[in-house]
Amino acid sequence: MDLQAKELAGQYQNALLYDVIPFWEQHSLDTTHGGYFTCLDRDGSVFDTDKFIWLQARQVWMFSMLYNRLEKRSRWLEIAAHGADFLRQHGRDEHGDWYFSLNRQGQPLVQPYNIFSDCFAAMAFSQYALASGDEKAREIAHQTYLNILQRKQNPKGRYNKAVPGTRSLISLALPMILANLSMELEWMLDASLFNQAIDTCLHEVFGLFLDRERMLLREQVAPDGSFVDCFDGRLINPGHGIEAMWFILDIAERKHDQATIQKAVDVILHTLEISWDAEFAGIFYFMDVQGRPPQQLEWDQKLWWVHMETLVALLKGYRLTSMPECLSWFERVHHYTWNHFPDPECGEWYGYLNRAGEVLLPLKGGKWKGCFHVPRGLYLCMRELEKLAE
Amino acid sequence: MDLQAKELAGQYQNALLYDVIPFWEQHSLDTTHGGYFTCLDRDGSVFDTDKFIWLQARQVWMFSMLYNRLEKRSRWLEIAAHGADFLRQHGRDEHGDWYFSLNRQGQPLVQPYNIFSDCFAAMAFSQYALASGDEKAREIAHQTYLNILQRKQNPKGRYNKAVPGTRSLISLALPMILANLSMELEWMLDASLFNQAIDTCLHEVFGLFLDRERMLLREQVAPDGSFVDCFDGRLINPGHGIEAMWFILDIAERKHDQATIQKAVDVILHTLEISWDAEFAGIFYFMDVQGRPPQQLEWDQKLWWVHMETLVALLKGYRLTSMPECLSWFERVHHYTWNHFPDPECGEWYGYLNRAGEVLLPLKGGKWKGCFHVPRGLYLCMRELEKLAE
Repeated sequence: MDLQAKELAGQYQNALLYDVIPFWEQHSLDTTHGGYFTCLDRDGSVFDTDKFIWLQARQVWMFSMLYNRLEKRSRWLEIAAHGADFLRQHGRDEHGDWYFSLNRQGQPLVQPYNIFSDCFAAMAFSQYALASGDEKAREIAHQTYLNILQRKQNPKGRYNKAVPGTRSLISLALPMILANLSMELEWMLDASLFNQAIDTCLHEVFGLFLDRERMLLREQVAPDGSFVDCFDGRLINPGHGIEAMWFILDIAERKHDQATIQKAVDVILHTLEISWDAEFAGIFYFMDVQGRPPQQLEWDQKLWWVHMETLVALLKGYRLTSMPECLSWFERVHHYTWNHFPDPECGEWYGYLNRAGEVLLPLKGGKWKGCFHVPRGLYLCMRELEKLAE
Repeated sequence: MDLQAKELAGQYQNALLYDVIPFWEQHSLDTTHGGYFTCLDRDGSVFDTDKFIWLQARQVWMFSMLYNRLEKRSRWLEIAAHGADFLRQHGRDEHGDWYFSLNRQGQPLVQPYNIFSDCFAAMAFSQYALASGDEKAREIAHQTYLNILQRKQNPKGRYNKAVPGTRSLISLALPMILANLSMELEWMLDASLFNQAIDTCLHEVFGLFLDRERMLLREQVAPDGSFVDCFDGRLINPGHGIEAMWFILDIAERKHDQATIQKAVDVILHTLEISWDAEFAGIFYFMDVQGRPPQQLEWDQKLWWVHMETLVALLKGYRLTSMPECLSWFERVHHYTWNHFPDPECGEWYGYLNRAGEVLLPLKGGKWKGCFHVPRGLYLCMRELEKLAE
């Protein structure tokens, strides 16, 4: 198997530095009210001004991370500060929980029903604290992280619509994101807290959510890890499962745990085998593990983040195991991704394709797509490819 | 314009009596735990056993209504009783609010966050009370209706995630369903309460939700009816708007209000003009009134209920106005509907098609599709066509 790693690293770097990041630098700053516009139409024009905390925080993280790890461009730090200041001023309620969304001026629109706002805010302020040396930013990240651990057992709080006692389900999303978040915050965490956190994530992800027979991750299971035969229990979210596996690969690499590395790579490959669309190519968005009709009407669509996270996972998996299956899948997903998502005419990448790979929504950013998965994926693939080229 | 009304009435009646209703009679009864299975795969096999109150109630309504208005078949009354008993026993919390869903045995799964469960329960018990003469059923319908009027200002209660004060929005769905529900319950309501209820619906639907410039119904507006430039404010739900218009046509016909009839028909026709897919035919599921990217990824799909409700609305509109545009649109939507939704091989109708009109999910029933829009639409079209044939 022959990977032109050096040339590919250049391709990912060029897209990052000359296409994707400039698009957000040019179109996303709200110089009147602070923060970022994320609802950007095909050409970068702003089509909605609401500010979603996930996306505000992720963009702070992105520019801080590039500043910290790629190049000390003062413009990148300024852009990160622009979002961090807005978030710090407007993002939290009186308990320190992060809202889900604000209006353009920063007034809260949607309550903190969604703990992932807090997760992305913690990531953002951690990277920003590293970039800026701002002690207050470090404190916000630290306090938010502890707050997440406290809310972990009932993340939706009073907005939880499940009747207690009939059917308890726990969700992969939280241990998965805590794996990545804990690694991000390691520099500021007490070592025992950090070690306990990542061991808990490993235990939960593989001990509770892994379908050992199929080597797939379930999206929701009973608190003891058993399968629940209902829409939520049958749900497979291939992008989530694969993204979770590269978070786990980062932890396993740090712990020099080759068995966990192998298990994570096995899950990545099995997930791709069941979720690759044999007819139109690309990775499905949602599947039912028993082949029942899924609840999600968008199940057959091809989404940007699913493909970006898969590229990252396959390169990490290949570097850590040298398995040729990782490389052949990488080439297949790379080919699909680069042929379908970039928009050479207007810049940046599409997010939403229909099953056939045609553009379903022309937007470059919206309520869920921001300055995050595309540039993070490009950056991480570039780094993996650089290591492979050595 | 030449409508073969008598032949068409036979076509709708045959589908109702020899295809759709038998499918539900055969596959949906849970003889072990009571109530209905609604998650039925293409061939009628049960793929999930959860019981969603919307669909339990709608099936009780459907069989009761057929018994009341079409034929006194004892089997239909038995089937209605089968669901009514289950709902009566398990459907409500201690305040009399209706849960969103139960498990197969009837234990509550999802809290009463959704007031439409109550709306469909009231409809169900009203028709069932008429069919059975059961005084307790009448009381349940009446009490539930009063309860809905009380909860109307804050229908989501503690599950409302909007932060008070920043951006208030009201939703078309509630006044729209109350128009239909009030007509359904007229026989048991105090005349002044009934008249006030339908006048309020008329005032709200046309006074607050109508975009007078475009003659379209907005899905959400500010409490004073003004446009709000955000995802929810820009949303057009063509099926909802058109269904609301036939609810209004029923009220306007009862009040002999020709101006309101004309206005409702104008809205139906304008909605079809903007939501008809010129490339693949069929009616889009969601649109943005400004042509921005909608939030709903399923926006371009073709759904059964949208097309059924449109057929009903166009026939009512044609009978009440004789406008040839109603007839030509009816013929176009009829042609699309009958060519795409029925499944002659396994019976009943598909619910979810992709933009191109191909089957997206093969199910005949699920979390949202049950024994309701297809048979109700077939029955109502049959009745309208019979009147037109006279």
